[in-house]
Amino acid sequence: MPAALTGLTVLDLTQVLAGPVAARALGDLGATVIKVERPGSGDDARSFPPFKDGRSAWHAALNRGKKSIALDLKADADRLIFEGLLARCDVLLESFRPGVMDRLGYGWPVLHADFPHLIYGAVSGFGQTGPDARRPGYDVVAQARGGLMALTGTPGGPALRAGAPVADYTAGLYLAQGVLAALVDRARSGRGRMVDVALLDAQLAMLDHAVAMGTVTGQPPGPDGSRLPAVAPSEAVQASDGPFVLAAGNDRLFEKLCIALGLPLVGDARFADNAARCRNARLLNRLIEAVTLDNTRAHWIARLTAAGIPAGPVHEIDQVLKDPQIVARNMVVDVLDRNGRAAYKAAGNPVKMSDAPDPTTRAPAPDLDGNRGEILRWLEQG
Amino acid sequence: MPAALTGLTVLDLTQVLAGPVAARALGDLGATVIKVERPGSGDDARSFPPFKDGRSAWHAALNRGKKSIALDLKADADRLIFEGLLARCDVLLESFRPGVMDRLGYGWPVLHADFPHLIYGAVSGFGQTGPDARRPGYDVVAQARGGLMALTGTPGGPALRAGAPVADYTAGLYLAQGVLAALVDRARSGRGRMVDVALLDAQLAMLDHAVAMGTVTGQPPGPDGSRLPAVAPSEAVQASDGPFVLAAGNDRLFEKLCIALGLPLVGDARFADNAARCRNARLLNRLIEAVTLDNTRAHWIARLTAAGIPAGPVHEIDQVLKDPQIVARNMVVDVLDRNGRAAYKAAGNPVKMSDAPDPTTRAPAPDLDGNRGEILRWLEQG
Repeated sequence: MPAALTGLTVLDLTQVLAGPVAARALGDLGATVIKVERPGSGDDARSFPPFKDGRSAWHAALNRGKKSIALDLKADADRLIFEGLLARCDVLLESFRPGVMDRLGYGWPVLHADFPHLIYGAVSGFGQTGPDARRPGYDVVAQARGGLMALTGTPGGPALRAGAPVADYTAGLYLAQGVLAALVDRARSGRGRMVDVALLDAQLAMLDHAVAMGTVTGQPPGPDGSRLPAVAPSEAVQASDGPFVLAAGNDRLFEKLCIALGLPLVGDARFADNAARCRNARLLNRLIEAVTLDNTRAHWIARLTAAGIPAGPVHEIDQVLKDPQIVARNMVVDVLDRNGRAAYKAAGNPVKMSDAPDPTTRAPAPDLDGNRGEILRWLEQG
Repeated sequence: MPAALTGLTVLDLTQVLAGPVAARALGDLGATVIKVERPGSGDDARSFPPFKDGRSAWHAALNRGKKSIALDLKADADRLIFEGLLARCDVLLESFRPGVMDRLGYGWPVLHADFPHLIYGAVSGFGQTGPDARRPGYDVVAQARGGLMALTGTPGGPALRAGAPVADYTAGLYLAQGVLAALVDRARSGRGRMVDVALLDAQLAMLDHAVAMGTVTGQPPGPDGSRLPAVAPSEAVQASDGPFVLAAGNDRLFEKLCIALGLPLVGDARFADNAARCRNARLLNRLIEAVTLDNTRAHWIARLTAAGIPAGPVHEIDQVLKDPQIVARNMVVDVLDRNGRAAYKAAGNPVKMSDAPDPTTRAPAPDLDGNRGEILRWLEQG
């Protein structure tokens, strides 16, 4: 059977990260993605390190398998091509600052009237509405203003970024989600919708626990090292040769953990349920480490895993890429170069679907304007 | 117009976080969500602090507007009800350890044969396949084993968790994405598919930059405080009264930044393009701070914003909830109690869609088994 989105075409005006993440997700599910780039330099991410053979490896990972055409949306001839593409494509994605598409004459009311089938997905720093809609926004601004940085770090230390562009990625995932929901809807209604996603909104949407703490207790939580504040234990603990992580989210698992570690805490009122364990989380951490410091990470991970308790190593990225589970899941794919040789490693598609292809290699990211001829011929075929 | 997923019903066996995040996303887009919980205690998250009036505020945020029925999937009478629900619902979600559904007689081959329309979404720590498929996995295990923790923190410091359950949330978003793509496909094929998402996979899928660095340069990146390693500058910098964030992802923005700060770096070869700025990121940070330390955060944020440069404050969650942009976007909603009074604050839906409702209040999370009668009557109506 073909991939789920086979036959759908996405016209992608986005660049850098959130938008390309959304387009990649749709492409990984079978859609054809046509990047429309500005002539000359194209997607900013083409200049983002690291480089291999003069090409950004990051850009290669994010844009694998897409096609590219360079269009100047202020030039009449290129606008004609763009409008031909709008008539043929199912989805338009853009990541301009709000207002830019309107000034180009391609705002949602115009597009919806001219191309009623078209689904329009916009991603921006702050969204299409609100007092700061037209401000530029990057991931670090969303993580900072949206509250994630103030929750990341050690108690009393500086606010830190999460080690990945979390706001960009989740905004991209929400954009893909909204577009897919609009496609489900269009199958019944025949009409497209506009989807409006903001990095700032997407970032807040993963802070449910902090929102609950801040509004119910009146004490907004702060950074707490490696600990997830809603569950205890759920953190890194020290073994004799370094840290590893463990977690026990319910009483059954906590009892198993106590038995596996030889900790006489079952029946202790201070640790009777998750709420009590959260109140005494720091003490619990010390009691666990008083045991785990006596042996190695490998020893404890094996023992806890055998007992059915979530536990694992703290891996650097080179270890992650060799992790047998990651490899078995085809989560590291080879992006090919123009000669069909494996050129870049990239993360695979985390959506594994029955009867759908999940190839171990992916087509290259396009050269800027690299598919112009092919795209124009496709348009001429009507 | 109705919400995009109006008329679709999701049968939700998941608990705690990744699965409920996916089900909430589908519910926010208009689907009806029926939680099937184990009799007695139900969803583990019901016991996660903080509590208000004896109920978990976190659980309330994640499960707002859902319905609940308690079923023992090993008891014949309850299995009959469950199978009635499978025949009526569009989507089944589950977050058991791989193998559990098979042992219950509800593995994908059986369900697909008996209920060919049904879409089956499974989320687990490590996925349905691979050597560690049956291991239990929590967010902290995925963040650690998947490489995010080793990228979060300060250079030379301990590996830290991102301040939100990033692996759980992104796995939930990928689960919703896969289910929606399967719904798009079903509209043409009439047949359901199985979607298999792992926390570990979802976590790796946001580390494209680290994968590129590790494989192209041979030097896996480490934690770097507040800095996004692919773009310079993109980080927190100190003003006279504390930190704020700024970013400039291309030469045009960098030039504007230099002008706004009065920094004579335009034309300086060390900062000529983003790649050069990344190589000299630490020096660039010091040169910027030598300027920004002379005035307040508010001064610099206003000046940079006026110049079109991404910049913003580092907010704690209570500040986020009052942020005029967040409020204008309806990103803080009131979850009602059983008396229709606003009881909990929760993050709104980051997917804003044209012609779709985005109410400022949401229905309560269900009591355990609180909708049994209503659900059984719905089944009887055939």
